[in-house]
Amino acid sequence: MTLAQYYDTVRTATQDICQPLQTEDYVPQPVPFVSPPKWHLAHSTWFFEEFILKKYLPGYVVFDEDFGFLFNSYYNNVGNRVFRANRGNITRPNVAQVYEYRQYVDAHMQELIQAKADDAALAGLIVLGLNHEQQHQELLVTDIKYILGGNPLFPVYDEVADWEAQHNTGTGFVTIDEGVYNVGHEGAGFSFDNEHGRHKVYLNQFTISNTLVTNAQYLEFINAGGYTNFNYWLDEGWSWVTENKIEAPLYWYIIDRQWMHYTLSGLKPVDPDAMLTHVSFYEAAAFAEWKRMRLPTEFEWEIASAQLNWGKRWEWTHSAYLPYPNFHKPDGALGEYNGKFMVNQMVLRGASCATPKGHSRNTYRNFFHAGERWQFTGIRLVKL
Amino acid sequence: MTLAQYYDTVRTATQDICQPLQTEDYVPQPVPFVSPPKWHLAHSTWFFEEFILKKYLPGYVVFDEDFGFLFNSYYNNVGNRVFRANRGNITRPNVAQVYEYRQYVDAHMQELIQAKADDAALAGLIVLGLNHEQQHQELLVTDIKYILGGNPLFPVYDEVADWEAQHNTGTGFVTIDEGVYNVGHEGAGFSFDNEHGRHKVYLNQFTISNTLVTNAQYLEFINAGGYTNFNYWLDEGWSWVTENKIEAPLYWYIIDRQWMHYTLSGLKPVDPDAMLTHVSFYEAAAFAEWKRMRLPTEFEWEIASAQLNWGKRWEWTHSAYLPYPNFHKPDGALGEYNGKFMVNQMVLRGASCATPKGHSRNTYRNFFHAGERWQFTGIRLVKL
Amino acid sequence: MTLAQYYDTVRTATQDICQPLQTEDYVPQPVPFVSPPKWHLAHSTWFFEEFILKKYLPGYVVFDEDFGFLFNSYYNNVGNRVFRANRGNITRPNVAQVYEYRQYVDAHMQELIQAKADDAALAGLIVLGLNHEQQHQELLVTDIKYILGGNPLFPVYDEVADWEAQHNTGTGFVTIDEGVYNVGHEGAGFSFDNEHGRHKVYLNQFTISNTLVTNAQYLEFINAGGYTNFNYWLDEGWSWVTENKIEAPLYWYIIDRQWMHYTLSGLKPVDPDAMLTHVSFYEAAAFAEWKRMRLPTEFEWEIASAQLNWGKRWEWTHSAYLPYPNFHKPDGALGEYNGKFMVNQMVLRGASCATPKGHSRNTYRNFFHAGERWQFTGIRLVKL
Amino acid sequence: MTLAQYYDTVRTATQDICQPLQTEDYVPQPVPFVSPPKWHLAHSTWFFEEFILKKYLPGYVVFDEDFGFLFNSYYNNVGNRVFRANRGNITRPNVAQVYEYRQYVDAHMQELIQAKADDAALAGLIVLGLNHEQQHQELLVTDIKYILGGNPLFPVYDEVADWEAQHNTGTGFVTIDEGVYNVGHEGAGFSFDNEHGRHKVYLNQFTISNTLVTNAQYLEFINAGGYTNFNYWLDEGWSWVTENKIEAPLYWYIIDRQWMHYTLSGLKPVDPDAMLTHVSFYEAAAFAEWKRMRLPTEFEWEIASAQLNWGKRWEWTHSAYLPYPNFHKPDGALGEYNGKFMVNQMVLRGASCATPKGHSRNTYRNFFHAGERWQFTGIRLVKL
Repeated sequence: MTLAQYYDTVRTATQDICQPLQTEDYVPQPVPFVSPPKWHLAHSTWFFEEFILKKYLPGYVVFDEDFGFLFNSYYNNVGNRVFRANRGNITRPNVAQVYEYRQYVDAHMQELIQAKADDAALAGLIVLGLNHEQQHQELLVTDIKYILGGNPLFPVYDEVADWEAQHNTGTGFVTIDEGVYNVGHEGAGFSFDNEHGRHKVYLNQFTISNTLVTNAQYLEFINAGGYTNFNYWLDEGWSWVTENKIEAPLYWYIIDRQWMHYTLSGLKPVDPDAMLTHVSFYEAAAFAEWKRMRLPTEFEWEIASAQLNWGKRWEWTHSAYLPYPNFHKPDGALGEYNGKFMVNQMVLRGASCATPKGHSRNTYRNFFHAGERWQFTGIRLVKL
Repeated sequence: MTLAQYYDTVRTATQDICQPLQTEDYVPQPVPFVSPPKWHLAHSTWFFEEFILKKYLPGYVVFDEDFGFLFNSYYNNVGNRVFRANRGNITRPNVAQVYEYRQYVDAHMQELIQAKADDAALAGLIVLGLNHEQQHQELLVTDIKYILGGNPLFPVYDEVADWEAQHNTGTGFVTIDEGVYNVGHEGAGFSFDNEHGRHKVYLNQFTISNTLVTNAQYLEFINAGGYTNFNYWLDEGWSWVTENKIEAPLYWYIIDRQWMHYTLSGLKPVDPDAMLTHVSFYEAAAFAEWKRMRLPTEFEWEIASAQLNWGKRWEWTHSAYLPYPNFHKPDGALGEYNGKFMVNQMVLRGASCATPKGHSRNTYRNFFHAGERWQFTGIRLVKL
Repeated sequence: MTLAQYYDTVRTATQDICQPLQTEDYVPQPVPFVSPPKWHLAHSTWFFEEFILKKYLPGYVVFDEDFGFLFNSYYNNVGNRVFRANRGNITRPNVAQVYEYRQYVDAHMQELIQAKADDAALAGLIVLGLNHEQQHQELLVTDIKYILGGNPLFPVYDEVADWEAQHNTGTGFVTIDEGVYNVGHEGAGFSFDNEHGRHKVYLNQFTISNTLVTNAQYLEFINAGGYTNFNYWLDEGWSWVTENKIEAPLYWYIIDRQWMHYTLSGLKPVDPDAMLTHVSFYEAAAFAEWKRMRLPTEFEWEIASAQLNWGKRWEWTHSAYLPYPNFHKPDGALGEYNGKFMVNQMVLRGASCATPKGHSRNTYRNFFHAGERWQFTGIRLVKL
Repeated sequence: MTLAQYYDTVRTATQDICQPLQTEDYVPQPVPFVSPPKWHLAHSTWFFEEFILKKYLPGYVVFDEDFGFLFNSYYNNVGNRVFRANRGNITRPNVAQVYEYRQYVDAHMQELIQAKADDAALAGLIVLGLNHEQQHQELLVTDIKYILGGNPLFPVYDEVADWEAQHNTGTGFVTIDEGVYNVGHEGAGFSFDNEHGRHKVYLNQFTISNTLVTNAQYLEFINAGGYTNFNYWLDEGWSWVTENKIEAPLYWYIIDRQWMHYTLSGLKPVDPDAMLTHVSFYEAAAFAEWKRMRLPTEFEWEIASAQLNWGKRWEWTHSAYLPYPNFHKPDGALGEYNGKFMVNQMVLRGASCATPKGHSRNTYRNFFHAGERWQFTGIRLVKL
């Protein structure tokens, strides 16, 4: 696949995700960590305009001077931006204008790709931009689910596809020997800066499950009083449970004495054999405690991954999101991509049913706050 | 005008207000006290369906069973409802469906009006529903302004009309003699229950301005340090100023050393001779203190009103919103219309440039919290 | 009683209230609206130093320059002060030093009173200071109760006296004729500026109870589901009930299926025949609604008062705290005494079991926010 | 030293720390993370009563049944307890009674120690209780400083001792070779469960400073605009700075153009050559970024420690507080000691000027939230 084709494939995929939406669905931001679909469409486009077209395409005229202010996400180095929690109140530019913006930038990007086919630094930036867009594709799916899922009518996003209904294919446990291992990304192929710096770690022997926790297993935890016994919970987790009155995974409801959950195909009975999803780190850690097992560290996961079935759930690890030994923050705005978030978040490994094809690898480090659970998160256990 | 014509006129006017909107503009709720235009359109329709069609039109089938839950505002007697602060996250039903809802209800309302032309109780309820709709027309205008006004692009709602640019037409002061006066609504014509119970009050002599405070006068207050001297402010007003860093009326900005304000026609220089608007009760009271004058009580205003020019600004009074001596809360849901809000709000008298024609009278009692200022509020002074 | 004797009597009474306290009890401020006893002792003393001794006693040397900062309450005109919510964290000066401060100021005040026996303006200020101190005596009692009452051990303040156990002595209702009446303070004797400006009001005929609501009557309201039926409540009151999970008056607990309440003599069974106390305006208004009666206005109360038994409870009226027609805020710091609080509070009339002797009159206007109930508040009803 | 002597030494040391306090100083809790000295005195005593005397001393009668409720800290397994933020409002039992409680428990503990001199499990529990008490000794010092430090009079705790004025004694950097190292506690001597499970880690070569950052070095950071340039800060750190308006370490003030800081000996000029203290992890990380260096990990620190001068500041590491590979939470209440706090906190290594003698070792893991800085924290850097 040429870079031009790659560019086109990724950019088209973003719009495909939005195809089932109605205009109104593009607008809301129900909570600060969810962004309006309109904003995702524009922001991923702004990334190409700001970091590539303005610098590499001679004579490029920005589509609209105001868009930088509106669609910058968190790059302080690039200037002021709309306060994050306010994104859902910005109705103009409207959806049609945002699509025009995408077309305008796409046309100029294709022009640039043709003109500078052999500029490796540029190609690297474009690939970064496409991987950035793929991250937003995954967020688009989960943010759309959150927006529609807050509606008491439980609207259907996609009648046909079975987004969240995966069953385990493997069985049993895998044991990994004690020793020094190499972790982190190396070699050809794209990776983010937070994976860089392949380095040695020492692992003790450990035994990790080849299956993810299922809904049935988690229901046992619920029925055993898992949400009412503080002994299973981290102290902050227990506060989270009691303050937010948490009694089940996100999107689960008891309706007529049956556990239902809201899926992208609408409200459905909970399938006992499907992989559990939409749990927080706190819930994952409490479940493991109840099972008298534990979560893997991110390096255990990485080393074991070749022998595991994975890819449908982001899997919570018991590793905090911290820099690798030789991590160097790049200078300038792109240095803000990852490094500044390296405190008070937990690492997730794997990929989810919402991860775009070609966007997963076993060194990928995803990260969220311990109480967040609107991603397609899951639980894999390690024996004590 | 027949009731059928009256109904049609009012209902059409609501949609006329929304004519300049784009679909996206119908969705957001930037703050809890502002509702999405889509919600106003649906809620005022639900009022007719819930309180009239379901009871008076035999065989009436509700448009959608879910709408009662979605579009009830605050009537606890009618069942559960969407938490108020969550209105901006409900994208379905979409705008087109809400307009279908209006058409459906309108058709049945016209059918009912034809069928029961001589039912006076019904006619009274319909007139209440239309007055309710007119209240929402005014809120629609101010809520649309708030939604668009939060956009850093300052979008134009209406290029042509001069919504907020009124100048005073009268001059001087009016003196009213001491004595016993009758206040409150009486006689034919619609009024709300909070105006009922015409009763006697004793007024001391007072002298009230025939003009509203202008932007130029208010700029004097700003320039004299009005927002930085606690002596002019009520204690709660001073907290409001310091906590919210208030330095000018809502929608005012200093741009290139010039005072600009956001209007429904976009960003404009402040016109010194126009009537001031978008001030809170706290600001009105502080301005009066600085001028060594005071705000009128609601009864002073009512008695003087025949001799005053009024109708472009809601005018803050120094009266708290409390029941009249013989106020009786109606039983049932309609009893929740006014009575339960009678604490910790201040009365405004008059009408504003956003008030529908035929919806103002000198006994009308509007009311808002002391810190609210997104309505077209103004200041009229009384001599000490 | 000479001024010197009057001064001594009032100042001694403050210390008598604190006699049962242990040193530790003088320190805490459990909520912002409650002040530490140590602070009351010092603040009422500072008032004499700041407003009288510094101006009237030649050569007076302040006890400690820092005390003005520490013990100013809310007089912005007198300079900076400790942030109100922080009073409970100031352990120095300690209690013994505060008593020394009192002795120092008292000695100089007595010296001043002897030296300027015939200065009427000064005498007026001293009387103001003593009435100010008496207001703080009442707050001392209620704040001490709040501090001790938050302790799960329910400590006893005063084993002997029967602070809160009053029964009604009158019976029946009193009817007052329609007409123009004079209200407000006039004549000799001390009064606060918010009572000044005797003026005419017009009252409709009304019929007011000669008894206050008893615990037994209020228990009927509780047992009838008063706290769970929104129809009885103001909208803000209902939010207050649900957000704070209110189910009974302050200090009431169900222990072993019996209603108990914390009193200044410790935990006691609720006496059905005693006057109800520690209810908010919201509760008073809901109770009245349930009884299909209403609260009096402050002017109805004032006119009827000569025919009523009153003085054990502060009685909630349905009047907002607003300036009288001719209210003029004094210039300077003393102008901050009352006027700046005249918004979003309700008037209480009467006096309570904690009001010092000689500190009550039928024109006295007390005022609190609608949700406050740590004062000895009560309910008197008027027929609809 | 016998166990009886050890017990007596530690218990006496706690009271020695409180010797300069006045009764009032024992009461306040200015922020939830600071506890009243009275509470520390009682809680560390309750620990012996609850976990030792009630189980091991036949016929032991608890001093007061209510104290368990009042002085439990966070052991959910032991029953209800006073809500943490409410500790400062509990004036009874008073200070004298708390000292009686200590005497009572101490007498019974000595009796028990004599009676069961050869019970190793009991001895282990007693040593745990004494180490627990030593942790509270350090907190007592820092909490007392916080309580007195919030008083605008800047009271002196200890005129004589030089608590915070330490200078570096070493110089230069230490380089540690790459390799597999053993970390964690092993062998005789007390340690906490979070240090247990000695295990191998792989370290890259690193070069660590033998000195802590001084006030002079940190002033350079301040003067270079360190607090105003987001590029140095973690994203959460930048929010912390802007929301809390942080401009310097805790207790630093500019007075007459000079940097002063509040110390346990009162307000003093900042000594440029003294070790910096009272910085948060956010500040430590930002300072390191500005210096183009980094913080050590907790294992780098532990391995290098034998070659470093340490012990006056708790040193922030860039390691999150997480369980060691073989960490097992003990069953029952003592299992709540450490494990449940292992999320969203950062590890500190070393010890501080407030750490009791004999209470530090190079495997000790202290931990605080990234924004906390009322401990005597410091910064040690590693070269990039």
